[in-house]
Amino acid sequence: MAGAADVILAIIGVGGVGKPFLKQLTKITARLAKSPSNPVFVKVVYLARSQTALYDRDSYKQVDLQYWEQELAARGTSPLSPSEVAEFLTKYPQSGHRIVVDNTSDPTVAAEYPTFIRQGISVVTPNKKAFSGPLALWESIISVAQNGRNESGKGGYIYHESSVGAGLPIINTLTDLLVTGDEVRKIEGVFSGTMSFLFNQFMPVPGAGKGMDFAAAVKIAQQSGFTEPDPRDDLNGMDVARKLVILARISGMKLELEGIPIQSLIPNELESCASGAEFLEKLHEFDSRMDELKASAEKDGKVLRYVGSIDVISGESKVGLQRFDPSHPIGGLKGSDNIINFYTKRYGSKPLTIQGAGAGGDITAMGVSADLLRVIRLTCTR
Amino acid sequence: MAGAADVILAIIGVGGVGKPFLKQLTKITARLAKSPSNPVFVKVVYLARSQTALYDRDSYKQVDLQYWEQELAARGTSPLSPSEVAEFLTKYPQSGHRIVVDNTSDPTVAAEYPTFIRQGISVVTPNKKAFSGPLALWESIISVAQNGRNESGKGGYIYHESSVGAGLPIINTLTDLLVTGDEVRKIEGVFSGTMSFLFNQFMPVPGAGKGMDFAAAVKIAQQSGFTEPDPRDDLNGMDVARKLVILARISGMKLELEGIPIQSLIPNELESCASGAEFLEKLHEFDSRMDELKASAEKDGKVLRYVGSIDVISGESKVGLQRFDPSHPIGGLKGSDNIINFYTKRYGSKPLTIQGAGAGGDITAMGVSADLLRVIRLTCTR
Repeated sequence: MAGAADVILAIIGVGGVGKPFLKQLTKITARLAKSPSNPVFVKVVYLARSQTALYDRDSYKQVDLQYWEQELAARGTSPLSPSEVAEFLTKYPQSGHRIVVDNTSDPTVAAEYPTFIRQGISVVTPNKKAFSGPLALWESIISVAQNGRNESGKGGYIYHESSVGAGLPIINTLTDLLVTGDEVRKIEGVFSGTMSFLFNQFMPVPGAGKGMDFAAAVKIAQQSGFTEPDPRDDLNGMDVARKLVILARISGMKLELEGIPIQSLIPNELESCASGAEFLEKLHEFDSRMDELKASAEKDGKVLRYVGSIDVISGESKVGLQRFDPSHPIGGLKGSDNIINFYTKRYGSKPLTIQGAGAGGDITAMGVSADLLRVIRLTCTR
Repeated sequence: MAGAADVILAIIGVGGVGKPFLKQLTKITARLAKSPSNPVFVKVVYLARSQTALYDRDSYKQVDLQYWEQELAARGTSPLSPSEVAEFLTKYPQSGHRIVVDNTSDPTVAAEYPTFIRQGISVVTPNKKAFSGPLALWESIISVAQNGRNESGKGGYIYHESSVGAGLPIINTLTDLLVTGDEVRKIEGVFSGTMSFLFNQFMPVPGAGKGMDFAAAVKIAQQSGFTEPDPRDDLNGMDVARKLVILARISGMKLELEGIPIQSLIPNELESCASGAEFLEKLHEFDSRMDELKASAEKDGKVLRYVGSIDVISGESKVGLQRFDPSHPIGGLKGSDNIINFYTKRYGSKPLTIQGAGAGGDITAMGVSADLLRVIRLTCTR
């Protein structure tokens, strides 16, 4: 089996993660093709954004990774549905492993992962939806994927490192702990770069400045590009809860998103605001609530941070505000960093900790690229 | 190619890492064999400690992972040389990927990795010697290994996660950064659990106790099992330098161990002590030197820590004492933890940080087991 191998790639999504991914892919494909003894030729035959797609149903013309934007504008056609993408890849007339890279956050694409994987197509994605959506979807994915439950599936591979902590090695580390027989007892951390930044503005550790009102901090976070367009999508805690659900399920817990108690930072009264702008305008009216919490924590020498935790032993999980000593690694977390602590039997009382930027296009794309290389290594070796 | 696959395993070394590895392996092999669609049968045909080995040249009888200690005592024979192990594995009469697990710290075994890998045998090891020894040995390994330089080799795989930071995901993370095209600029950290423990005894952060004399701290570290039998093997800084060399070479630097300036904590006058015991007895005579450094750091509100760093851009590296603010992650490191900071182009001014216990049999074995599973996944997939 020595010698050249082909990889047939479909890429869905060319936004904040998709664009830097394509840049990284250009370099990676050039390197892989140049291997003297083991060349791998990555052929991108489908590239889609929400309304248009580049592909050629008959000739399977490859997408030019340099000029895709111009080509998409010039000759883009209607995107295929996910199941049509599967069919398109399957019918590609040459051998080679088929991979779908889903760089969207679209639940309808995620819902089709079992369709892809069952047909031997691997899926690489930062999209959280499939892994934090209905438990049944998760179960169906890991029962068919080769690297799923007990490595017993017959289908393609599924890799989604960037669905938690962007490029930080969270999921691979957790998986290695588990497959080597460690007992993961508790996972705790700051899973949101937005929340990290926000609380460093709202309540910095002593000596790092005064701190601002909560509404003002949210505005700064939005202006600095740290929030979703509608900041309520961060403040409702759902993003953190989704990441927790993913880690909980990998750890063996049968958890639904609805099963996690989430402390939302959106005042009840503002749930129904028609827009993010309206919400931001009114948020300051509720600053006194957050100020009370801040003052009370301050009195005890603590800082407030927005954390998530799962206790694998007791089955309990939660997302919300907690107080930390400023010298605690979570209390002292800087900038917009994430921090994730794994407490396990082998590591004992002190956790294995991974920390660093957990959001941003380049580093999220990096996790996707690394996963893609993993699949290529698994399927194109001799 | 669906269906069952065999893995033919030789294991060298059954000491502090080898024993917990065998325990982990027992569970892993049971799990792999039970996979309904993809069973993998791991056959241990050779198991050696320094003076005796279990193997059967004719029948290739498998080593019983439950009773190996008794069997080794009862019917152990002379170990094979590394090149004889290669021949023995190659002549095994059935197909299946061959893997050598080297759980020793023996440079003579390490010197034969190219022999193994060239013959298609993969190597999994926590042994630092091959990767921090002569540059020529390193070059010869990565030029033949499939996952070596540019993934261009034709031989077996080489994995050695546990050679730096035990089970912490250091090497895999660095590799992922590099293969996806990030630019690693600087790596800095506390690479020795011994040094971490020692300096937390000698000079705890303010508020965490008074600190003890250096010689007393070394004695406590030894009594707590944190040092090598002869503590000079830790205090000379060579262990830290070896780990740095490994990370530097992975990052593309052509560095020899001798090229790293190392600040040894062994007083010149005690270099020639005949034994570790004599050294420990005399060390307190030199406490005043360390006390001076401590007092001077204290005056500036700093703590002393023993760190290693490589600057990939300038090519500079060093191992020795540095002062840190107690609030700095390195200054505030607890217990015997390691901490490794990767500064890269994509991560910007704040590093990607990995922290946790970096020594101990179970967690070192975990890194070995995870690497073994990686090789099995790469070679036993369809």
